[in-house]
Amino acid sequence: MMTDVFRRGSVSLVGAGPGDPDLLTRRAIRRLSEADVVFYDALVDRDALDLAPNARRVFVGKRAGRPAVTQDGINRLLVRAARRGLRVVRLKGGDPFVFGRGGEEALALAAAGVPFEIVPGVSAATSAAGLAGIPVTHRGVASGFVVVSGHAEDAYRPILDGLTPQSATIVVLMGLGHIEDISTLLIARGWKAQTPAAVLFGASTAESEVWTTTLGELKDGLNVSDRTAPGTIVIGEVVRLRGAIASEVVPGEAIAR
Amino acid sequence: MMTDVFRRGSVSLVGAGPGDPDLLTRRAIRRLSEADVVFYDALVDRDALDLAPNARRVFVGKRAGRPAVTQDGINRLLVRAARRGLRVVRLKGGDPFVFGRGGEEALALAAAGVPFEIVPGVSAATSAAGLAGIPVTHRGVASGFVVVSGHAEDAYRPILDGLTPQSATIVVLMGLGHIEDISTLLIARGWKAQTPAAVLFGASTAESEVWTTTLGELKDGLNVSDRTAPGTIVIGEVVRLRGAIASEVVPGEAIAR
Repeated sequence: MMTDVFRRGSVSLVGAGPGDPDLLTRRAIRRLSEADVVFYDALVDRDALDLAPNARRVFVGKRAGRPAVTQDGINRLLVRAARRGLRVVRLKGGDPFVFGRGGEEALALAAAGVPFEIVPGVSAATSAAGLAGIPVTHRGVASGFVVVSGHAEDAYRPILDGLTPQSATIVVLMGLGHIEDISTLLIARGWKAQTPAAVLFGASTAESEVWTTTLGELKDGLNVSDRTAPGTIVIGEVVRLRGAIASEVVPGEAIAR
Repeated sequence: MMTDVFRRGSVSLVGAGPGDPDLLTRRAIRRLSEADVVFYDALVDRDALDLAPNARRVFVGKRAGRPAVTQDGINRLLVRAARRGLRVVRLKGGDPFVFGRGGEEALALAAAGVPFEIVPGVSAATSAAGLAGIPVTHRGVASGFVVVSGHAEDAYRPILDGLTPQSATIVVLMGLGHIEDISTLLIARGWKAQTPAAVLFGASTAESEVWTTTLGELKDGLNVSDRTAPGTIVIGEVVRLRGAIASEVVPGEAIAR
């Protein structure tokens, strides 16, 4: 078969983790080092791209809230590059299958007969809280967690609507634009306004910021400019643990000697 | 202060990812390479331990279902090793703050005044499904997911009880022993028996196995021996995508040329 004789292209759908390139996996780093072309998103760190010294770098993320390329366009770029025999890395913030539209890319690649793989990454769904000293689960406090996209009401409302109040940690990604509605919805459904909550900006990066508050006051503390920033909202009793945990937690590099 | 003059010990609570050492992060690998002692769990791969050539390796996981050391005992070991000035790695499967009891260790370290850090890992909560070709979220199919521990009824029931049927992907970790109860509970709460479901064993390892079925038939297909194995259950319409995605997905190493 031709595909055995000629070099056959392939695509790696790679999770870049929450931001700090130190949280890339070993496999992600190897794929970058061997890549001929990297298609990357807005949330990917420049230092991560430098791990692909031989690759052409193509930005396909959003600029000022507008996509540079449509999802269909990205799918076509991936297929076309692989068909030219290239080793393609599709580098996505977090994990490719957690709100990354990686599923759509995988389906397009499969439909086109292009070999591809999933390289899971460290998702902000768990790590943003963890890096801030908040465990999403904790014995006796939370035995599970719920992760929703907060970008549109129909994405989060059906899930949060039925959730038994105080039963789990809630993590909202991309939800700062709807923070008032989410807070109001949960309180209306029986969640205590005093439930601890946190808003996490820039997890794992030098710009990381943590703001702890309560569910009832979530809607009051954000500036207008915050609402378009990528941030993670965490709601639940586990947020309270941060007070004790964060007293000694040291940032990643400080511990290295 | 003495702590500035003398070398001060520290603890890294490190997530080892789902199993394959290739899915360790760069920071995890660096911490292992510099470690004086590694306290590790049952699910950690031997090859990951080999990344800590200078470290004493201490097994503190479960053997035949029984813990080798109690959680209090582990907390004390970590504190004592750090106080001796050692660089300590606490290596845990997945992510240290996702059902890893990492929060308890963090609290113990903070209470003892021991400097520590969290090194997030790739959690099986998202990656087990992803590696099997199942995206936990997918546009138009699932805009969120719920992760519960299935080890005891009071861990999962309060969360699953209220959840609006078909509203999210459900991921159950450590739940094979309660698979019948979970299936019965969800169907009684209004979930369709035909909801696609999968059971994932040994994600990311050479022994990985995927069994796809439906919520209604989840309880019928497991051998007795399966029920004590570490396995991940995924329930939701996203499981259906595997048919199309997995047709071309290649295992991690096959893509490397």
